[in-house]
Amino acid sequence: MDALTPQEIDKAHERIFPLIIKTPLISSETINKKTNANVYFKLENLQWTGSFKLRGASNKILQLSNEEKSRGIVSYSSGNHAQAVAYASNLFGVQATIIMPKNAPSIKIENTKKYGADIIFYDYKHESREKIASEIARKENKKIIKPYDDLDVIAGQGTVGKEIAEELRLKNIQPDLYLCCCGGGGLIAGSSTYLRYAFPNIKNFAVEPEKFNDTQLSLKNNFIVKNKETGESICDALLAPQPGDVTFPINQITLDGGLAVSDEEVKKTIVELAEEMKVVVEPGGAVAATALLTNKINVKNKNVVLMISGGNIDYELFSSIVRNC
Amino acid sequence: MDALTPQEIDKAHERIFPLIIKTPLISSETINKKTNANVYFKLENLQWTGSFKLRGASNKILQLSNEEKSRGIVSYSSGNHAQAVAYASNLFGVQATIIMPKNAPSIKIENTKKYGADIIFYDYKHESREKIASEIARKENKKIIKPYDDLDVIAGQGTVGKEIAEELRLKNIQPDLYLCCCGGGGLIAGSSTYLRYAFPNIKNFAVEPEKFNDTQLSLKNNFIVKNKETGESICDALLAPQPGDVTFPINQITLDGGLAVSDEEVKKTIVELAEEMKVVVEPGGAVAATALLTNKINVKNKNVVLMISGGNIDYELFSSIVRNC
Repeated sequence: MDALTPQEIDKAHERIFPLIIKTPLISSETINKKTNANVYFKLENLQWTGSFKLRGASNKILQLSNEEKSRGIVSYSSGNHAQAVAYASNLFGVQATIIMPKNAPSIKIENTKKYGADIIFYDYKHESREKIASEIARKENKKIIKPYDDLDVIAGQGTVGKEIAEELRLKNIQPDLYLCCCGGGGLIAGSSTYLRYAFPNIKNFAVEPEKFNDTQLSLKNNFIVKNKETGESICDALLAPQPGDVTFPINQITLDGGLAVSDEEVKKTIVELAEEMKVVVEPGGAVAATALLTNKINVKNKNVVLMISGGNIDYELFSSIVRNC
Repeated sequence: MDALTPQEIDKAHERIFPLIIKTPLISSETINKKTNANVYFKLENLQWTGSFKLRGASNKILQLSNEEKSRGIVSYSSGNHAQAVAYASNLFGVQATIIMPKNAPSIKIENTKKYGADIIFYDYKHESREKIASEIARKENKKIIKPYDDLDVIAGQGTVGKEIAEELRLKNIQPDLYLCCCGGGGLIAGSSTYLRYAFPNIKNFAVEPEKFNDTQLSLKNNFIVKNKETGESICDALLAPQPGDVTFPINQITLDGGLAVSDEEVKKTIVELAEEMKVVVEPGGAVAATALLTNKINVKNKNVVLMISGGNIDYELFSSIVRNC
């Protein structure tokens, strides 16, 4: 694929739909009343492997040649892409080697192992996962399955936008606003491309942790801005150092801006989503809902589509958030 | 309606579908592996008002005459039916008076109030809610919306069985087993009727708290057996004293038996559902999953449909279960 188009996302959907769950688009009376809006939550935390990442990983792996598959693949990920690559590889009998940070949530490490991948841990403050992966790929002649900077991966993630669009059309709803988390930017690049195509007047906003607001800053400046290296956040899935070289040019076209939220706000949202929506959401999966619930943008009387991207939170962290909020 | 038939459930579905969420039917890789089965969880905790009860309540209220609506309605409920009746009444501008136990979960009381119903509290150990409701209905010439012993309510609950059947057929899956919670027996009567019609070989099992296993005992004995009055359970939604006069004859035909689970087992399941399925489930909504996860029935290599009926758990209880399990 040379460029991301809605038609490529349609093709990706045809390819992957037997492997994925068509996740629900759900509303909450309480949250609608509280926000004076109609909010439609897309629950990708209920997706196989606990996040949207299976969409992109399976769209990529399904297009490998048999020879490429037989040589195995290599990938790197903070955890959700790792689980998705491991799961899809396992399904197709492909050996997967995945570079993960030492301090990834245990649930993500354990599941990646459980799906049969070989894990190589690295220290994300002092080593480059891309370099480690390139080295292995070169030595062992393996394909790299990137977490976001790949058009096939982005098209796969875009299928979530297609599902949302189809469901809204069936219900005759015109969305005004789309709020979606943003790490490397693959999910929002794919899904906002499809939503803008289906609903030309929709406004698309990226939501990031406040110390990892590289996409917000890059959109403002019209060039790629890196995060400061000193930042920390509980949103382990959204710690990419800067917008992707492939994702950013797409997001420059489809996005209307960026929003940022704090860890404390995210924690409160995790509790509110458990209470009001009856769902368990990981920190990175809750940032879009956090932007909504802390009024980072005016939603009054609007139809808002909101991405809940994943649910892979360590039980100890979930339990401590639930206890302390 | 004189008798519950699948066609009456089809009619109920036509009536109520604009008011309800078609809730998802979701699987978990981990739970499938653990149980050696293919388990399909129907997530009615994601339904409007947080439980399946909206289906039956709205099917009943939609069939009232304008005159009946103008006089208001009266109902009684441990909490989930209360919220559903309050919500549906509010939608149609009908005044609702609802008799609830003093010790109902706060979330259920607060939501019922929030939807605009008038609540009358009673002491469930020493007073009869049916008597209080009859008295009001007689004096104020109001219709009673019963929680389960009413064919229209049962047909409404049955629409969840229709949704399950349609989704399984689309996926070309023949279910072997259906596990569903049972209080008064309305949900399981309606849904098992539809599932037996769609899949004649399916085995339907009611799951109850161990000290409220009246349906299990009644099915064994072939007559209605009451629970001992001394029992306690955290499954507040499933404390009906005995099978319903209307639900039991239906369940005698459609059910293959009953299973019972302990409160301690239910608590562990609530944690497991949060961890593995990313959902928040109330105790009564988790009993069918508990029967599965504690091997109360052989599911090896079977396709199992499992009802998650509601998610209205007080945050304090959820938090203490999450903390202590």
